[in-house]
Amino acid sequence: MTVLVVGSMAFDTIRTPFGVATEVLGGSANYFSVAASFFTDVRLVAVVGEDFPDAHLDFLRQRGVDLRGLQRVPGRTFRWVGEYGYDFNEAKTLDTQLNVFADFAPAIPSDYCDAAIVFLANIDPDLQRDVLRQVRRPVLVAADTMNYWITRKRASLRQTLRGVDVLIINDAETRQLAEEPNLVRAARAIQAWGPRALIIKRGEYGALLFTEGEWFSAAALPLESVQDPTGAGDCFAGGTMGYLASRMRFDAPSLRQAMIMGSVMASFNVEAFSLDRLRTLNMAEIEARFGMFKRLVHFEDLGAPEGASR
Amino acid sequence: MTVLVVGSMAFDTIRTPFGVATEVLGGSANYFSVAASFFTDVRLVAVVGEDFPDAHLDFLRQRGVDLRGLQRVPGRTFRWVGEYGYDFNEAKTLDTQLNVFADFAPAIPSDYCDAAIVFLANIDPDLQRDVLRQVRRPVLVAADTMNYWITRKRASLRQTLRGVDVLIINDAETRQLAEEPNLVRAARAIQAWGPRALIIKRGEYGALLFTEGEWFSAAALPLESVQDPTGAGDCFAGGTMGYLASRMRFDAPSLRQAMIMGSVMASFNVEAFSLDRLRTLNMAEIEARFGMFKRLVHFEDLGAPEGASR
Repeated sequence: MTVLVVGSMAFDTIRTPFGVATEVLGGSANYFSVAASFFTDVRLVAVVGEDFPDAHLDFLRQRGVDLRGLQRVPGRTFRWVGEYGYDFNEAKTLDTQLNVFADFAPAIPSDYCDAAIVFLANIDPDLQRDVLRQVRRPVLVAADTMNYWITRKRASLRQTLRGVDVLIINDAETRQLAEEPNLVRAARAIQAWGPRALIIKRGEYGALLFTEGEWFSAAALPLESVQDPTGAGDCFAGGTMGYLASRMRFDAPSLRQAMIMGSVMASFNVEAFSLDRLRTLNMAEIEARFGMFKRLVHFEDLGAPEGASR
Repeated sequence: MTVLVVGSMAFDTIRTPFGVATEVLGGSANYFSVAASFFTDVRLVAVVGEDFPDAHLDFLRQRGVDLRGLQRVPGRTFRWVGEYGYDFNEAKTLDTQLNVFADFAPAIPSDYCDAAIVFLANIDPDLQRDVLRQVRRPVLVAADTMNYWITRKRASLRQTLRGVDVLIINDAETRQLAEEPNLVRAARAIQAWGPRALIIKRGEYGALLFTEGEWFSAAALPLESVQDPTGAGDCFAGGTMGYLASRMRFDAPSLRQAMIMGSVMASFNVEAFSLDRLRTLNMAEIEARFGMFKRLVHFEDLGAPEGASR
């Protein structure tokens, strides 16, 4: 199955306590595509300016990312400047220059319209619906959003959610969107608006899945060397959706495994600035880390034979 | 095996968005004892004033808590007034009246000296060492502390830690104690000072275990009706140590199960003010919730047969 992603391509300037990275490659569609590309074919829809480097497009092509939906237009690519303190859970935005992204109108190539999974990254909810109007019956539609759209375009976002199967947002956004401080009740409220599954990202604390029948808590791996948390959420979504596409199953056990795979991809991505860690990553490393997540949360049932272990 | 706990008995006045509770029973030794009593015999060392109700002592006795080490002295019992906002992870202390707790000098009855597990709740690290001088070779010494002692009695605390096997503190305290923002490195630094295991409490995000050989992440159950988080950490410690005592094993698999049992007890305790929920709790409910924690984090190995589930 193929995955279609619509989102941003950007140059990020990032300050952390461990260093500064200037105008490195970023953007939700970029992180998502590269993470998903380890598991499945990815089709990308985004916009860049004339200043976007060919070398990076070559990298995406090498990873099997289909770029026919990438628009290259006159002007400068989207820029974001952000800063993190020792608490990596929240970025402080210092500057945003939308540039060519300000007039982004996603056009889905006709060849893309059969994508089985559509991921609507964090863009204007009006545009997210534009995309859904252009695609043929995807098996699964997943979406992200952010506080900016929750505040400014609540009605449009609610409308978009009617067509979304899996909403992937963070815990503060969950509470804000539902206007409910309790996470369980907030999740239930949002599910009533459309998404049958809600995946709540909690940064270094992992992620939660709420579906009608069940809840799942995905741990995050404690990490000794976090360099740059930028893109972790999009790598998580990319790993999750990419793995689901590769399984060609969307049942609860697959969704659980997929969220762990998303966590694996995010855990690698934060080890270096931009998406540099993913440039050298291989499948053996991914599978080994999946096993680490398994051991991290394992405990015996009550009444299991004494000393039983695995 | 028996567990000995040394800590506080208090009257708490608590404000949350869901109500106010005035002068209800609280204190670390109280929460710990009741939680641990579901699994093992508990011996308590603490101090109360003349105003402490007999009815509560009867409740503790009914739960099998040995009160020969409880000092009842002239004066008023320790009072604490605290407030929580919608973010239940942090209490704001509005008032503290130490009263008889100000001159607390733990005296361990000679019959207590054979306790296999000693839990030093959050008290002055000088007193924690006083306790350790009075007990005979416990199999396991666990301790809690707080930012107040880390700031004011760092040297004494470091000295106490030399005699502690398992330190149970929250994540902010871990970073503060180690003077290191990264949790993995902070844990390693603290382990080098004595504790072979560090259990880091993260409130609604669960708890982490760091030992020399391995890490364990215990999820927290998403809860729909949290009434009062006071005492959750002490119930967690009580469930953990009580379960370990009942197992009579201290290996890694037992420690993992014990932390889940601690999480189970904490998850019940926050459902009502004070320790009211524990008054009606029974073993069948505890075992059922342990199973919920198991299902909450379960996911299949990679390569597991498709559709395999349990």
